[in-house]
Amino acid sequence: MGMNGGRRFAAAVLGRFQHPAQVIAGSFGLVALVGTILLSLPVATASGRGTGPLDAMFTATSAVTVTGLAIVDTGTHWSVFGELVIIGLVQVGGLGIMTFATLFAVLVSGRLGLRASLLAQAETRSLSMIDVRTVVRKVVLFSLVSEAIIMLVLTGRFVIGYGEPIERAVYYGAFHSISAFNNAGFALWSDSLVRFASDPYISLPIALAVIVGSFGFPVWFELLRAWRHPSRWSILTRLTLGISVILLVLGTLAFMVTEWSNPKTLGPLSDPAKVLAAFFAGSMPRSGGFNSIDISQMYPSSWLVTDVLMFIGGGSAGTGGGIKVTTFGLLAFVLWAELRGENHVNIGNRRIPEAIQRQAMTIALLGVGLIAVSTYALLVLTPHTLDRVLFEAISAFGTTGLSTGISADLPPAGHILIVVLMFIGRVGPLTLGSALALRERTTRYELPEERPIVG
Amino acid sequence: MGMNGGRRFAAAVLGRFQHPAQVIAGSFGLVALVGTILLSLPVATASGRGTGPLDAMFTATSAVTVTGLAIVDTGTHWSVFGELVIIGLVQVGGLGIMTFATLFAVLVSGRLGLRASLLAQAETRSLSMIDVRTVVRKVVLFSLVSEAIIMLVLTGRFVIGYGEPIERAVYYGAFHSISAFNNAGFALWSDSLVRFASDPYISLPIALAVIVGSFGFPVWFELLRAWRHPSRWSILTRLTLGISVILLVLGTLAFMVTEWSNPKTLGPLSDPAKVLAAFFAGSMPRSGGFNSIDISQMYPSSWLVTDVLMFIGGGSAGTGGGIKVTTFGLLAFVLWAELRGENHVNIGNRRIPEAIQRQAMTIALLGVGLIAVSTYALLVLTPHTLDRVLFEAISAFGTTGLSTGISADLPPAGHILIVVLMFIGRVGPLTLGSALALRERTTRYELPEERPIVG
Ligand SMILES: [K+]
Ligand SMILES: [K+]
Repeated sequence: MGMNGGRRFAAAVLGRFQHPAQVIAGSFGLVALVGTILLSLPVATASGRGTGPLDAMFTATSAVTVTGLAIVDTGTHWSVFGELVIIGLVQVGGLGIMTFATLFAVLVSGRLGLRASLLAQAETRSLSMIDVRTVVRKVVLFSLVSEAIIMLVLTGRFVIGYGEPIERAVYYGAFHSISAFNNAGFALWSDSLVRFASDPYISLPIALAVIVGSFGFPVWFELLRAWRHPSRWSILTRLTLGISVILLVLGTLAFMVTEWSNPKTLGPLSDPAKVLAAFFAGSMPRSGGFNSIDISQMYPSSWLVTDVLMFIGGGSAGTGGGIKVTTFGLLAFVLWAELRGENHVNIGNRRIPEAIQRQAMTIALLGVGLIAVSTYALLVLTPHTLDRVLFEAISAFGTTGLSTGISADLPPAGHILIVVLMFIGRVGPLTLGSALALRERTTRYELPEERPIVG
Repeated sequence: MGMNGGRRFAAAVLGRFQHPAQVIAGSFGLVALVGTILLSLPVATASGRGTGPLDAMFTATSAVTVTGLAIVDTGTHWSVFGELVIIGLVQVGGLGIMTFATLFAVLVSGRLGLRASLLAQAETRSLSMIDVRTVVRKVVLFSLVSEAIIMLVLTGRFVIGYGEPIERAVYYGAFHSISAFNNAGFALWSDSLVRFASDPYISLPIALAVIVGSFGFPVWFELLRAWRHPSRWSILTRLTLGISVILLVLGTLAFMVTEWSNPKTLGPLSDPAKVLAAFFAGSMPRSGGFNSIDISQMYPSSWLVTDVLMFIGGGSAGTGGGIKVTTFGLLAFVLWAELRGENHVNIGNRRIPEAIQRQAMTIALLGVGLIAVSTYALLVLTPHTLDRVLFEAISAFGTTGLSTGISADLPPAGHILIVVLMFIGRVGPLTLGSALALRERTTRYELPEERPIVG
């Protein structure tokens, strides 16, 4: 089987979807369009006065790309219908990205645990359709079960800890569990989750949902099947777990060190609550998008830490955004191998092909270039400082949804730019990654080599 | 001959310098130390009161790394002796970097025009010493002749245009031609060259000297020998020329568009002077370091453009800093090849080996990482905003020497950080590049490959 089976399977699916990149971008665009129309309806607003097309498009794109940036207050501007449209877009967007990414992982990966079972019947002609259905079913099941568990915990806490009536508690629980698991970051309170900064029964389930969702389905599938045998884990799983844990610890420590005595953020909290809120802040840039401390009051150094974490983002087949922890981890290993003078880049007992290294570099470089150009445009378009517009651009590209508070202030051109960034940030790395990995490479005669100096 | 001759030559030189990286870092460190001692002497100051050790070290490092950042006013703080020490450090530093880099280019490059003549007597045993001497002699000759020409033009202008007495005009001409050709950016006026913003007879020779110096000796050597035959040019020469011209045009246009009506920068100038000053501003980030418009009054979007240009820097074997235009150009070609789905990265009719691609990526990634960490440290250490400290960090790493005006304001820890950045920025890319390119790679058995998904 091995690569051969993978190729055959890829060919079968590619035969169905002529251009997977177009399918992914097209479906996200279509859902965003439908969302824009629904959110433009007067019935979608609490006031019944309707929402302008740009604001509706911004919100719909933010929802379907599971970003969470908002230019109207989610909890007060929209009616229940509007909120249901938003959370529906989040659910569709999150499921879509996880399904597409999982299919892609199945196609590309050489030893993903998932593939064995999917390819067991590799000889039958109708394989591709069956397998696509299998993947969709498993992903949906995984998402709904995870969301249900988080919802139960949150609902219980809203009833017991805050005396909310049961329907309201269920509604809050469902909305925020979907928003958290899909890394969307929409909250029904104007201050996001600042009021729950000291409450571990809200903060921890939300953070957990964000982390679980950001790892992605293939990682969980493998962990659930082979948690006793780490040596059999794929590189995808190892990189996702390893880099995520490192970034989580470093992020939490950075926020603790910098913000511990900031009177506008961690300062007023008790010591355990400070640790809790720093952990929450450390887990959200990858790329949950909730905040339990006021981001606009953080020190600029904390913004920079958040920038880096948001750019890296979540797992490759999860609901998080950014260039992905896998890409970042691969580049770190490439760097390490290069500095040690090794010809090959090995992770664990596997060698990483040069084509994959170049893909990782391509995605990172394009991300940096896109952020640089957008940040420049925002600097020209707005009176805001670099730290705030850079944060906003990375948050949109990383589909993170955190903001220093300038989202609503941007001019229309700025809002359109953020919409474009969210869209590219959501479908870009995935479609680019799949396009790079799945295509046939043109084979050309080799030219004589030349070694220019660098550095 | 070909690679074989190159290898033998490399082995011969490496036999002399056991660890080239240590030799380069050590000699720069030693010269900086001597410079620090000389600049600490009371006789080095105009007031005769002496200079604190940190300020002396900062200035000496800034001079020998040809950066040009200053925390005391060069024209008023130092005596003539102090100024001579500074310009001497600049000359030694500039010659050193160009010599080391040229030797490195000779060693590594497979078809650099320079090598043919150097290796003509490749059979003699005493080759290495002769060739090192040949390179040093040619580099010194090239530098001094270039500097003399620029000096004559500047001196003439100071006499004719500004009525300076002849000795003073010669002194100014010599100081600024050395400072310009070596991309050092030290000027004897507090406002750098703002007073000459409208004077093409000062601005253009200085800009030209900076550009000539930043291309580097191997490029000029090849251009002088084969200017009629561009098809024979090496990739080093093509990339250096091509990327430099593109960045120069883009930089000039960006400054024209953004600053044209800024009353604090280009605004008050006549239209031709605006174009001249924009060209000057566009040529300086790579990495001349003079300014003819007030950088602290530029719009933040212009700072961002300057950040990008300073990070990229100058030519690989020139007096400029940064990751180098060659590194940037290579990465652009790698990206382009990857997006087009080509297996090989070809420039012109030559294939770029994968090892070189990885070196370029390594240098760029380490640069980004270093800038991120230093910027974070400066944000924590100082009350300044991100745009200013990022500018300062990139200017130090890129040995550019431009500043938004915060250099003198930094606390001692900030000054030490800038010193370290200048030093790493100067010797880092070169020694890293040579270490990566010249070492023997460990050969290991190949592990089975695995293709994790990225993006
Ligand atoms: K988000
Ligand atoms: K400089």
